[in-house]
This record gives sequence, C-alpha cells and structure tokens, in this order.
Amino acid sequence: MLLNKPVPLRYIFNKIRHELFYVLVIGLSIFYLTQTFDSALPEMPIAIPAFIGTAISVILSFKLNQSYDRWWEARKIWGTIVNESRSFVLQLQLFLPKGNEEAIRQIAYRQIAWCYSLGQSLRGLNATANLENLVAGEELDKISLQENKPLALLQLNTAHIAKLKEEEQLDRFSQVQINTTLVNFSTAMGMAERIKSTVFPVTYRLFLHLIIYLFVITLSISLRGIESYFEIPLLVLISSAFFLLERSATHLQDPFSNKPTDTAVTAIAATIERNIRQLLNEPGIKKPSEPDQFYLL
Amino acid sequence: MLLNKPVPLRYIFNKIRHELFYVLVIGLSIFYLTQTFDSALPEMPIAIPAFIGTAISVILSFKLNQSYDRWWEARKIWGTIVNESRSFVLQLQLFLPKGNEEAIRQIAYRQIAWCYSLGQSLRGLNATANLENLVAGEELDKISLQENKPLALLQLNTAHIAKLKEEEQLDRFSQVQINTTLVNFSTAMGMAERIKSTVFPVTYRLFLHLIIYLFVITLSISLRGIESYFEIPLLVLISSAFFLLERSATHLQDPFSNKPTDTAVTAIAATIERNIRQLLNEPGIKKPSEPDQFYLL
Amino acid sequence: MLLNKPVPLRYIFNKIRHELFYVLVIGLSIFYLTQTFDSALPEMPIAIPAFIGTAISVILSFKLNQSYDRWWEARKIWGTIVNESRSFVLQLQLFLPKGNEEAIRQIAYRQIAWCYSLGQSLRGLNATANLENLVAGEELDKISLQENKPLALLQLNTAHIAKLKEEEQLDRFSQVQINTTLVNFSTAMGMAERIKSTVFPVTYRLFLHLIIYLFVITLSISLRGIESYFEIPLLVLISSAFFLLERSATHLQDPFSNKPTDTAVTAIAATIERNIRQLLNEPGIKKPSEPDQFYLL
Amino acid sequence: MLLNKPVPLRYIFNKIRHELFYVLVIGLSIFYLTQTFDSALPEMPIAIPAFIGTAISVILSFKLNQSYDRWWEARKIWGTIVNESRSFVLQLQLFLPKGNEEAIRQIAYRQIAWCYSLGQSLRGLNATANLENLVAGEELDKISLQENKPLALLQLNTAHIAKLKEEEQLDRFSQVQINTTLVNFSTAMGMAERIKSTVFPVTYRLFLHLIIYLFVITLSISLRGIESYFEIPLLVLISSAFFLLERSATHLQDPFSNKPTDTAVTAIAATIERNIRQLLNEPGIKKPSEPDQFYLL
Amino acid sequence: MLLNKPVPLRYIFNKIRHELFYVLVIGLSIFYLTQTFDSALPEMPIAIPAFIGTAISVILSFKLNQSYDRWWEARKIWGTIVNESRSFVLQLQLFLPKGNEEAIRQIAYRQIAWCYSLGQSLRGLNATANLENLVAGEELDKISLQENKPLALLQLNTAHIAKLKEEEQLDRFSQVQINTTLVNFSTAMGMAERIKSTVFPVTYRLFLHLIIYLFVITLSISLRGIESYFEIPLLVLISSAFFLLERSATHLQDPFSNKPTDTAVTAIAATIERNIRQLLNEPGIKKPSEPDQFYLL
Repeated sequence: MLLNKPVPLRYIFNKIRHELFYVLVIGLSIFYLTQTFDSALPEMPIAIPAFIGTAISVILSFKLNQSYDRWWEARKIWGTIVNESRSFVLQLQLFLPKGNEEAIRQIAYRQIAWCYSLGQSLRGLNATANLENLVAGEELDKISLQENKPLALLQLNTAHIAKLKEEEQLDRFSQVQINTTLVNFSTAMGMAERIKSTVFPVTYRLFLHLIIYLFVITLSISLRGIESYFEIPLLVLISSAFFLLERSATHLQDPFSNKPTDTAVTAIAATIERNIRQLLNEPGIKKPSEPDQFYLL
Repeated sequence: MLLNKPVPLRYIFNKIRHELFYVLVIGLSIFYLTQTFDSALPEMPIAIPAFIGTAISVILSFKLNQSYDRWWEARKIWGTIVNESRSFVLQLQLFLPKGNEEAIRQIAYRQIAWCYSLGQSLRGLNATANLENLVAGEELDKISLQENKPLALLQLNTAHIAKLKEEEQLDRFSQVQINTTLVNFSTAMGMAERIKSTVFPVTYRLFLHLIIYLFVITLSISLRGIESYFEIPLLVLISSAFFLLERSATHLQDPFSNKPTDTAVTAIAATIERNIRQLLNEPGIKKPSEPDQFYLL
Repeated sequence: MLLNKPVPLRYIFNKIRHELFYVLVIGLSIFYLTQTFDSALPEMPIAIPAFIGTAISVILSFKLNQSYDRWWEARKIWGTIVNESRSFVLQLQLFLPKGNEEAIRQIAYRQIAWCYSLGQSLRGLNATANLENLVAGEELDKISLQENKPLALLQLNTAHIAKLKEEEQLDRFSQVQINTTLVNFSTAMGMAERIKSTVFPVTYRLFLHLIIYLFVITLSISLRGIESYFEIPLLVLISSAFFLLERSATHLQDPFSNKPTDTAVTAIAATIERNIRQLLNEPGIKKPSEPDQFYLL
Repeated sequence: MLLNKPVPLRYIFNKIRHELFYVLVIGLSIFYLTQTFDSALPEMPIAIPAFIGTAISVILSFKLNQSYDRWWEARKIWGTIVNESRSFVLQLQLFLPKGNEEAIRQIAYRQIAWCYSLGQSLRGLNATANLENLVAGEELDKISLQENKPLALLQLNTAHIAKLKEEEQLDRFSQVQINTTLVNFSTAMGMAERIKSTVFPVTYRLFLHLIIYLFVITLSISLRGIESYFEIPLLVLISSAFFLLERSATHLQDPFSNKPTDTAVTAIAATIERNIRQLLNEPGIKKPSEPDQFYLL
Repeated sequence: MLLNKPVPLRYIFNKIRHELFYVLVIGLSIFYLTQTFDSALPEMPIAIPAFIGTAISVILSFKLNQSYDRWWEARKIWGTIVNESRSFVLQLQLFLPKGNEEAIRQIAYRQIAWCYSLGQSLRGLNATANLENLVAGEELDKISLQENKPLALLQLNTAHIAKLKEEEQLDRFSQVQINTTLVNFSTAMGMAERIKSTVFPVTYRLFLHLIIYLFVITLSISLRGIESYFEIPLLVLISSAFFLLERSATHLQDPFSNKPTDTAVTAIAATIERNIRQLLNEPGIKKPSEPDQFYLL
C-alpha cells in the first residue's frame, strides 16, 4: 500500500518508461516526416484526437473503477480476516470453560500463523517462513509437505476443535458456532485466491493501448503547426497522464504481487498478532515500527 | 479465461472480420462517391462524428461495466463453490465421529463430481463425462436418465447425509449445519444457471452497432478532404477499437459458452479436486499442468 | 426476455414511432423556415448540439445503468426463487422421516403453484389460473377470495408445516430450518412486488425527452447548410439512436408488465416445476418446448 | 412517489424558479453589456462553454447516481419492512400453539402501528397519530412520553414475546427465531434513520451550482452573435435542463421529507396493514383507494 | 458532517488556497510571456484544453464516486453500530430473567462507552476520555494500559456474558445469540479501522493534479487572445471548480480525521446513549443540543 508520503518520481516514471519512449519515437518521426515531405501528410482536424482522447478517458474510467473494486475487495477480505480472527479468540474465551487457556493459546497462535502463511502464499513467497514460534515443529513439518499450506493450517485448527468437543470441553452447539468462524476463514482465503488467480480481461488493456497510440499519432499530426520544442513535450505530457493512469489501474488489479501497491498483508497480519496477543493478556507486545519507505507491505 | 500471455492477433481480428469488411466497403464507397460526384455529398462538420464517437464511448462504457459484472459474478460464484466445497469436507470431518472415513470419502468424491458436472452442464457439454472414478457405476446410470444432472448429484449427497442421520452418526444439529452448505451449493448452481440462461438485452447491441455504423459513415464523409491512403486506415483503426471493445464485452457477457474468454470452470474444478484430496490425506496428488495456450478453460 | 434471435424491425420502430414523427415535423419545419425566411434564423455553432448530444449520452448512461440494475435485480429475485424452491424440496426430504412422501408432494405442488401465481400476479393477470392440478379444489376456492393470492398460498404451506410439527413428524429444530426457507420466499415475493410497484422517477424521463428535442432543434438549425435530402435522414437516425436507447431502458425498468422485454417468469416457473418433479422422482417430465418467437415470457 | 401520470408543469417549474430568474438576469445583463460596450467583452470561443457543459453533465451524472441510490435504498428498506412484517405474523402462527390468537393479534397490531409510527417519525410528523385502534390506550400514553416512539413500540413487542416465553407458550428456540425478526425491524429502522439524518455532502451542490452559472455566463458571451430573441430562450432552456436534473437529484436524496418525491411510506404501511389483516383472517379488508393526485405519499 | 447550513466561503477557499496561488502564477506568467515574446509561444487550438477538461471531469467523476462510497460506507458502519447497540439491549432484556437489571445496566453502559471510545480512537484522540460515568474505575485503569481500547471494552463485555452463563442466568442458546451481536460489534469496529488505515491510492491524486495543471497551462495559452482582466478570472474560476471538487472528494475519503467533513461519530454515540437510556427506562434524558456551527462532529 502506498502511504501518504511523497512517491519518488523515479518510481513513477520507471513504470511507463517503455511507453514514453515509444511516444517520443512517434513524435519525432512525425516531426521529421512533416519537415521532409510536407505535402505527404494530410491535414488532421484537431477534433479527431480530441474525441479519441475523450473516448480514452471514458474507457479508462471503466478500468479505473473495476481495478479499484478489485483492490478494495482485497482490502475488505483482509479486513474480514482481522475481524474474524479477533472474534475467533473472543469466542473461544466465551465458550471454553476455565482450564483451557493452553488450548486457546495454541489455536490462537495457529490462527496468527495462518494469517502470515496466507499472505506469503498469495504473494508466491515461502508460505511457512517465520512460523517456528507459532506452530509446533512436527506440525510445521507436516504442513510443508502439503500443496496448500494455509488450508493445512486451517485443517489443524478444525481437528483441534473436534478434539476439544470429543473431550467434552465444548458442547455441540458452541462447536457449531466456532465452525461458522472457521467457514468464514475458508471463505476469506478462497476470495483472496480468486482475486489472485483471475486475470483481468487482457484484451481491454490491449485495446486501450491501441487507442492511446492512435491518439498519439493523430495528435502529433494535428499539432505539426506548433513548434517542435513545444509540441513534443505536450505530446509526452498528455500521453503520460493516460499511461500513468492505465498503469496505476493495472497495478491495483493485482493486489497480491509483492509490489509497493499491494494490499499490506504482512502489516495486517502483524496487527492481528498484536491484537490477539492483547486478548491473550500477553505482556510486552511490541509496537508497530514506523515504515521508513513510501509504501507498506 | 485469457491468460497473461500474448493473445494471437489472428484470434483477435477473427472476432471482428465481418464488421471490418463492412467498414472497408463503406469507406471505399464514400471515397468513390466523393471522387465521382463531388457536389453530391454535402459538407459534414467534423463535430458530428466527433460527438457521435463520444456518445459511443459512453454507451460502450455502460456495456463494458455490465458485461464485466456478469463475468466477475460468474467467477465469484465459482469461487464460492471452491470455498464451500473445502468447508464441506472440513465440516464432515468435524461433525462425523471416527469410523466414517469411507462415508466422508464417498460424499467428497460426489462433491468433486458435482463440480465437474456443473461446469460441463453450463457449457452445454456432456454432464456425466469422466465421472467414473468419482461416482459409483449404478449411481452414474441413474443420474444419466435425469434432465438436470448436477441437481441429481446434489440429491444423492442429501440422501446420504439423511442416511447418516438415520444411522445416528450425525445429530440433528450437525445435520442442519451441513444442510446449510448443501443449500449453498444449490444456490451457487442456480446463480450460474441464471447467468447462463439470461440473454443480455439484445436491443442494446443492435443500437450500439447502429450508432457505430452511423459514426463510420459520417466520419468518412467528414474526412474526404484527407488522402484516401490515409483516411481508410484511420477509419478502420478507430472503428476497430470500438468493435473490438464491443466484442470483448459481448464475450464476457456469456462466461459459460466454451470459448477462450470463459470462466475457467474445468481448471477450477481440478483445483477443488486437488484441495479435497489433500484434505482427505490422499498421497500423490498430481500437480496442475502448465497451460500451453493463451487461455485456460 | 428477448432471445438471441433477430428482433423484427417493425417491433423496434413501433416503439418510437411517435417520437420519430415529431423529429420529422421539427426537421421539415426548420427546413421550411430556413428556405423561406433565411435571415430569421440565427447561425447556430455546431458545438451547441454536439455538447448537448454528449450531455444526453451521459444522462442516458445513468438511466441505462439504473434500468439494467432493476431488470437484473428482477432476474436475480427469480433466480433465488428457483434455488430456494429446489432447496425447499431437498430440505423436506432431508428432515421428514420416511412415510411422509404424500405430504412432501402436496407441499411441493403448492410451491410450484406459488411460483406460477406470483408470476401472474406481478403481471396483473389472473393469479389462480391453471392451478387446478397443483392445489386442492377447496384450497383454491379459499385463495380466490383473498387479495394477495401468493401470500395466501404461502400461508397454506406454513400451516401445513405447523401441522407436521404438531404431528411430531418434524422436530422444532428442523421446523425452524424450513421456516427460514419460507421467510426467503416471503422476502423474494416482497422484493418482486417492490420493483413492480415503484415507479422510476418520472421527472428524469421528462427532462431527458426535453433535452433530446432541444438537441434535435439546435442540430437541425446547425445543419441547414447541408442539403435537406441528406440532413433529414441524419437527424432522424441520430435522434432514433437516442430514443431507442431511452425506450429500451424504460422497458427494462418494468420487468413485470407482460411485454416481450419482461423477465421470463412463466418460463422460469415451468423450469421450477420440471426440477421439482425430477426431485420427486416423477416419471415422464415434459421437455421445455422451443420458443418460436423472438422472446420468451 | 411520483406516479406514472402527467406531472403538472407548474410543479416542475416552481422547483427552479429562483435559478431561472438568475439565468434570465445574467442573459439580459450580458445582452445589454454587449449592445452598449461592444468592445468591452472579449471573444469567447464556443468550445469553452461546450466543454464546461460536458463537465457539468459528468458531475451531474455522479450526483444522479448517488441520489438515486439513496432513494432506492430507502425504498428497499421499506420493502424489507413489508417482507419482515408478513414473515413475523407467519412465524407467530407457526411457533405459537393454538389458543394464542389474541396474543398474535395484539402483537401484529402493534407491528402495524410501528410501521405507521416509523413513517410519521421519519417525516418529522406526529409519530403517535391514528394509532388508537391498533395499540391499547395506556401503552399509547407511555409511548408518547418517549423520545423515539417506534423504538418504544418495538420494546413493547419484545417484552410481549419475553412474557410468552415466561408463560411457556414459546420455547427458547422459537423465541430466538422471532428475536431475529425483531432485530431486523431494529435494523430497518436504523437504516431509514441513517438516510434521514445524513446530509448529502453539501459542497458538491455548491460547486455544481458554481459551474452551472459559469457555464451560463460563458455561453451567453459566446452566443452574443445570435439575436437576443433567440439566444435568451436557448440559454434558459439548456440551463433549465441542468437545474431540473440537479433539483430532481436533490429531492431524491431526501426521501423522507413529506414531499411528492418521498418514498410512499404511508401507502406502504397501509399495504402492510391489509396484508397482516388478511393473514389474521379478518373479514372486510378495505381496498386501497386510487390516488387522485400525481403522487402517492 | 457538513449540515444544511451556509458553509463559510472562507472555509471553502482556505482548502484550495495553495492551488489557486499556483494557478494565478501560471496565468500571470503566461500573460507576461505573451506580452513580451509574442512569437515565442505557439498557437494552441482551444480543442486541446477543452478535451483535457473533459478528461479531467471523467477521472474526477471516478474519484468522486469512490470517495463518496468510502464516506457512505463509514456512515453505514456507524448506522450498524446504532442498530446493533439497540438490539443488544433489547436482546439482554429478552433473554436474561428478572433480577438482572443491574447486570444489564452495566453491560449497556460499557456498550455506550465502547461507542464513544471507538469514535475517539478512530480520530486519533484519547480513547478513554469522559468514560468515568460509564465504566467502573478499576476497569478503566486496566483498559488504559491496552493498545486497542475499544477491543479491551469489548472483551470486558464478552467476559461479563461468559460470567452470566456460568452463573446460569443465561442458557447456552441465548448466549450464542448474544455472541452473534458481539461479533457484529467486532466486525463494525474492524470495518471502520479498515477505512481509517487504508490510504486511497495516492497516485490517482498525483496524476489528477498533473492533468489539472496541464489543463491550466494549455488553457491560458489558448486564451491569450482574450484581455487579461477577463482571462485570469476565468482561468481561476474554472480551475477552482476542479480543485474544489477534487478536494471535497479527498476530504470524504477520510471520514475519521477530526475535520468538519467527518462522519459525525460523537453525535451518533450521543444518540446511542440517549436511545439506550430510554430502553433502560432512565428518567430525564437530555435532549440533543442544536449545533451552532455549520458542521456536526
């Protein structure tokens, strides 16, 4: 997640350096053609690029909306994970009789591990990294052999709840309530996986690029009356605006790709850890450190 | 689902070859008319096609949005099927006492079969293909006689749950919980059938095509001052952009039609199979194979 | 629901014949005025109708969206009715012990009757037509006396469930589950009635028509330089596009008005009947007949 | 709610008479300035008001959407109240054993009273008007002393349900089901109060008016070449369209303000009364009277 | 929340004084350049800034929509808190037997405290301010040591409910119902925290500003034919409209930042307090005081 801090210009222009290069090449080529074979290129009424520009902004607006919705949905899913994780611990404390503090702690720790593991897994990173302090060693070994690590952690907690029911620490009714929360974790995981694995319709991006280049070409022909030291920067600036918006949208579409524009899943998992440790009355919970970059992962 | 791979140009232009042919005919006819009877055709201010172009992009944006929503809803429904299928197996493991492993396996396999069968049925393909390893032979025979195959599979699982209750392996309360999940499968199936069977208002498409051709005609009259070797390509390119976006939207509207832009229901069903087999602790689950095409079905 | 078949041109132009007549009158009047009193009419810059046209398409896009949403919501409600009806029968089979097959059949038939009756009632047609084979005669007589027929059918099923509970065929817990489904029917019915009884803000339509006529007038003045045999068709075509889109939207707004653009409630009710009869294991379920018109009611 | 009847022109123009007066003053002033000091006013390219007009329609479209959503949400909330009220009576009939008919009638009547009272309270009218036939006298006296009358009615019904449980007419499980419906009433009430009490961001309206006047001024300067007997009406008509749309949106934003554009809460409450009386098998339910105005309150 | 009162002009222009200063500087510089080196600056067709202005309004419309959605979601969350708080007290009165009035009062007061505390905490203010009359002293001391104060209050109420169950004042079934409401509080808190902690994609704002300045520069070059005493105000007014809309949107994006455009969380918490005290039959509930400013916090 980008923070409310100045974003380095370098980061921004790095994102569209290829596109800007092509725009420059087009602008200069048309300038050269105009200078050399003046009569070869026709008059281009300015209304043509102007209306194409309007069309671009309308289509772009569609893409901005849908990308933002994906990004916001990803954030909502992780918000749900925060809420349900806290409720989960509160429910265990509400339903389990005294004397089960150790079981609650184990399940709660596994839940923290699940959050970290899901975040890593969505980003394509090692889904069992740094879980040593949260999950018992032999369990961690078993999980490592599975394809879907977070699902394996969820199954361990399901089995633990089933064991508590068998030991009659939980009645059937409370077990069912807790089961609902486990279902919600499974749902949230599936929703995040859906966003991760669904490619935004690629043809839109292709056609949008096609129209932007069409715009650049027609605009540069239209503007040939203007001096080149003025026309080229204008061309670059207007097309930059379009490309930057398009690129921002594209980045928001994939909020789990280990980029600065990602949903801050690691930071959210750390918040969950702090909240759960507070609910378990653990002393000395470490404060979150201030991020020193322009983004938070 | 189109993947993040280069889409073959041939695939793209194949989609709008009829429309491009008409545009070419219109462009050449008007060029011929202009050459022959110069005074016959009136002056057309460029503002007319320009504003029609803007109107097209606004109406198109409406269609893009609604089509995308249909496509995304289809994907969400199948995401729900993933989540609920995994939760279903976890619930069975939570609620059924030890010794029911075989029953759980049978129900879980029928659930996998339901996913494949629903996907095939939505695409209008054989809904009982490749289910031999998942469903018992006599059951498969009975299903084949029914009109709605996935519904028949769902009814088999409902009957199995009812039998487990009768044999007192399940209490009423747990049965009700599992029933909720069965209702969710019925709901997801109905939602997918709704998208499949509801035709997007056809008149919109008709009127959109009408306006695009109106745009092509007025634009080609407006541009007759421009040399034909320049005007015709410009005409074709701008109208291509509109037709391609319209066609993309039309394809997304029907995400269950056995096309490359479909929701990848077969791949999703395979993921469910792998996940459920992991939950059943089956060894040697086959990895998903890398798709070697630009799409995934 | 309009099908994916060619829509007769006559059907389409019938919808806007009044509007086209007015446009023709305006176009010819202004042509006449121009011819006769050339200096009386001022110069009208083409930018005026152009920007009004853009404004129309933006406002129209708002109306298209909201109308589509109403239509899609109506379809979703009937999709829910499909899902819940199937789940209802599955639930009865899950919760009622053996020997209640006749009771299940009666309740299921009443549910089919409810679907047909609701569809008829929403369209303002006879809500007890063709229910003789589904509901007992004396019940049908009682229903006929009530104002809200589908609600009366729902109350009959509620009473039947209450009776099964009294006869101890159902425990309280299962009864509550079935009650949830009955509540869902009541909700779906209320949602459909809401769409039926809520008039889309009429002033929008009024103002939209006002702007379109303003557009027609300014455009026809702007275009007077163009020959009349060219100007009038152009005027008619562009304004047709706007009026057709507006009219399509208006039709979608009211999806229960016994028109070809309606939600296909009768066809959906027939699907429910076929599905429920399959679940009841009835032999010889009739296939749906292919519609031979361009729409399905 | 405005009905599908001709809306009196007087009603419509009354809504924007102030704005039209200002537009007239601006138009005439600029006409006078142009006549008197011709060189004082600069040339204004028509593209300036044209693009401002486009910007207005885009911003207006945002406002139309959000206002419509508020209005539609208000209607949905009252639709929910219809559904839940009917389900409430059905639930009481399902769960309470025979002999509680009088208790059901009392609770159902209080529910009808709640609907009327909530409608009045949202409109800022007397929230205990005309409830004498529905609620016992001493209860009505107690309610009158409370700040939030509908909440007091809801608490009375909650207490009645609690009493039925104490008298063992209801088991805990059924009581919980009925409690869910009571929670839904509390939720619907809170949602309606939210719409009532949340002011739509006022600055949007301010800025929109600012831009419309900017548009009127630039347009009237642009059009000074046109004869005044033509220019002033054109100016007034175009700006009317904007102001009327803006005003329609503003009215929809506040659907509980005792205006013709309100959600028809009184009519809906009357429908609920008729439906509940049908469910209670009361004879001689009065038909709804045909509204003789162009709106329904 | 801004009220339906005149907003001081000073407040409004204060928000964009930096931007207006830059616009003024640009306008004057270009005027000076035009006067001094007339031939240095090229002709700029008015269509360029016109189409950029249209693009700005489209992108702005995207931002207005998303910001409004955040603001409206924040208001919905607090509406849910109102509803659930009232339902919570009604539920306690429904489920707890007579003699628990003091326990109900304690829990209800803690709930009021939670509302105030959450509001303060979201705004970054002291989350335990003014809670002395609502929460016992020793509890307040414990809460002060925790990082997340509202979560600590919620845990206290959860523990109190668990104690009532242990003392057999509540059966398991009613406890579960109340637990659902506690989960809803946890969810609402998490949703508000999500809005608070998620930065709206900063790059959009950056690019929007970039385009607006591009617009100002191209427009001021286009307009150089117009007298400066007319051009500069026009430039400032049009760009003001854009900057004001952009700034309004930005303010709505962060509805918990202790600004006049905030969601009125303190006022809502006060309403909850009054409603809960009414449900507890407390006498002499203080009326809400009329706000004497143009906003409500």
